[in-house]
Amino acid sequence: MNIYDIAIIGAGPVGLFTVFQAGMLGLKVCVVETLGFVGGQCSALYPQKPIYDIPGFHNINAQELVDNLKKQAAPFNPQYFLDEQCLDIKKEAEHWLLTSHKNTIRAKVIIIAAGGGSFDVRKPPLKNIDQYENTTVFYHVANTDLFKDKVVTIAGGGDSALDWAIVLAKGIAKKVYIIHRRPDFRAAPKTVAEMNELRDLKKIEIITPYQLETLEGANGRLSSIIVKNLDNELISLKSEYLLAFFGMSMNIGCINNWGLSIKNKYIEVDPSTMQTNLTGVFAVGDICNYPGKLKLILTGFAEGARACHSAYTIIRPEVPLHFEHSTTKGLPGGK
Amino acid sequence: MNIYDIAIIGAGPVGLFTVFQAGMLGLKVCVVETLGFVGGQCSALYPQKPIYDIPGFHNINAQELVDNLKKQAAPFNPQYFLDEQCLDIKKEAEHWLLTSHKNTIRAKVIIIAAGGGSFDVRKPPLKNIDQYENTTVFYHVANTDLFKDKVVTIAGGGDSALDWAIVLAKGIAKKVYIIHRRPDFRAAPKTVAEMNELRDLKKIEIITPYQLETLEGANGRLSSIIVKNLDNELISLKSEYLLAFFGMSMNIGCINNWGLSIKNKYIEVDPSTMQTNLTGVFAVGDICNYPGKLKLILTGFAEGARACHSAYTIIRPEVPLHFEHSTTKGLPGGK
Repeated sequence: MNIYDIAIIGAGPVGLFTVFQAGMLGLKVCVVETLGFVGGQCSALYPQKPIYDIPGFHNINAQELVDNLKKQAAPFNPQYFLDEQCLDIKKEAEHWLLTSHKNTIRAKVIIIAAGGGSFDVRKPPLKNIDQYENTTVFYHVANTDLFKDKVVTIAGGGDSALDWAIVLAKGIAKKVYIIHRRPDFRAAPKTVAEMNELRDLKKIEIITPYQLETLEGANGRLSSIIVKNLDNELISLKSEYLLAFFGMSMNIGCINNWGLSIKNKYIEVDPSTMQTNLTGVFAVGDICNYPGKLKLILTGFAEGARACHSAYTIIRPEVPLHFEHSTTKGLPGGK
Repeated sequence: MNIYDIAIIGAGPVGLFTVFQAGMLGLKVCVVETLGFVGGQCSALYPQKPIYDIPGFHNINAQELVDNLKKQAAPFNPQYFLDEQCLDIKKEAEHWLLTSHKNTIRAKVIIIAAGGGSFDVRKPPLKNIDQYENTTVFYHVANTDLFKDKVVTIAGGGDSALDWAIVLAKGIAKKVYIIHRRPDFRAAPKTVAEMNELRDLKKIEIITPYQLETLEGANGRLSSIIVKNLDNELISLKSEYLLAFFGMSMNIGCINNWGLSIKNKYIEVDPSTMQTNLTGVFAVGDICNYPGKLKLILTGFAEGARACHSAYTIIRPEVPLHFEHSTTKGLPGGK
């Protein structure tokens, strides 16, 4: 019977770094991932987006970060079960039994690194929007080349909306409109300031407080977007593309049924161990919560390290864990 | 009167990343560092040593990491006060007053990222050792070129001793002896295993349980090292270099007198904020402690982020801190 030391649920950046940390402690790991590829939201939603707050990288695209993390974990030969949703976990004798659509997996410890769970995009409630989706209407950006020298309308007031407006306004799109239903933006103050600079340079036109009303076009190609304010005044914006960033509805799905202590869609953990209310089940990254939790990738990395060290004492109770300094411990085969 | 938002004490990797995080929140920062350069122990003690557990880097030398972190912080134009030991901190009206040898600095918040404090090497108690220091006896490695094709004796049983033994045994030194007073090694199990592999390949010779007894040589150049076991049996090892890794005695010095809650040389913090017992004074990285603390650089990075977010609510009590996702917020000037 094949029993892994640790089964990690979720192969986003935090799950991948947790593989590495477990490997450094000599533990045998598998990863169960719903998507058909590793990288989580980084790879699925914003592969080309630069991330600035990964320590030691002046900036790094989301996909590059994922590729690096996968490479960093590779010397430990983790077993990836991709395209497999973990449906249930159950304690069985000395180990945990994980059931996916395809497999039954046994592990001494489970680390849940499932991010926001499975995620669904929130779409604008426009009746004919499906006719344009994936040709001229998008809810995430996979490739910026499409928008070269085009007029792009971006709807939304959060970080994604403004970040993409800024990226596209700087030398990619011909013109960028931002539509937001409120006069204020939820995005980071620095981002708002940068958007306003680009507005002053006429690279971005900000239209607030307006909401999307109607899409006009034919054969899947937008021509204009009609927007409306609170007084029902309409403006028509000639526009070739619409990017709508209304956030995602996250769904932790079956994780709700595993007997975990969950509050507001977050798994509660003891931050001194990252253990959940179930002994031997840990949670790290965006899916976990504790007092003072910051939803940063870099925080998830530290949580992954903490969880592995805690897990080690369960997996190898007889072996004292050597741990002194954050210096090199070498990689397998000295690679 | 120039008042910084945050004064960071210590410019090691964690202090540098804390500069970046503070900058991302729009805060004005200075850094006070005892050494004449940034990078802390990474730059002072092991600049060429590869670090494997920085997320996203398959490996990175300590100095490269420092260089990257400094570059990442640079867009926020931090003021560095180098070669300045912070002697005292005092609350003064609405801000803190920091006194160094050279300056008086005012800041709304202090973040202590002082690592192990100022550090002194523990030397082997050999009477003539000072005659060889810095020519053939070293307590840290600045440049491995010196040991090319030489016979090097390494004394110590911890990570530093074994890491360097492994590095030097793989294609640099002609021969490496390891002397340790116990049969067991304190280093990471993986490192011990790698050392044993190199022993089997005759690249390392392990001599335990033996201690350093006498150095022989002339004009600052070692010729032999005499080692002794518990039965007073002596062995003479022909050896051109001695590297002794007996650890460091860390000294947090004047920080003891600042009214902070300190236990076993660590500043106690509330991990949900990283605040110390003094309101407006935070501690991050190796110098702080809380339940479950891991002394990893990557953990210090997360602590730095946490401290900055906590500090923000003190520095800008009127401005709600926008914080949602760990994605890009852009850099100043869009760089």
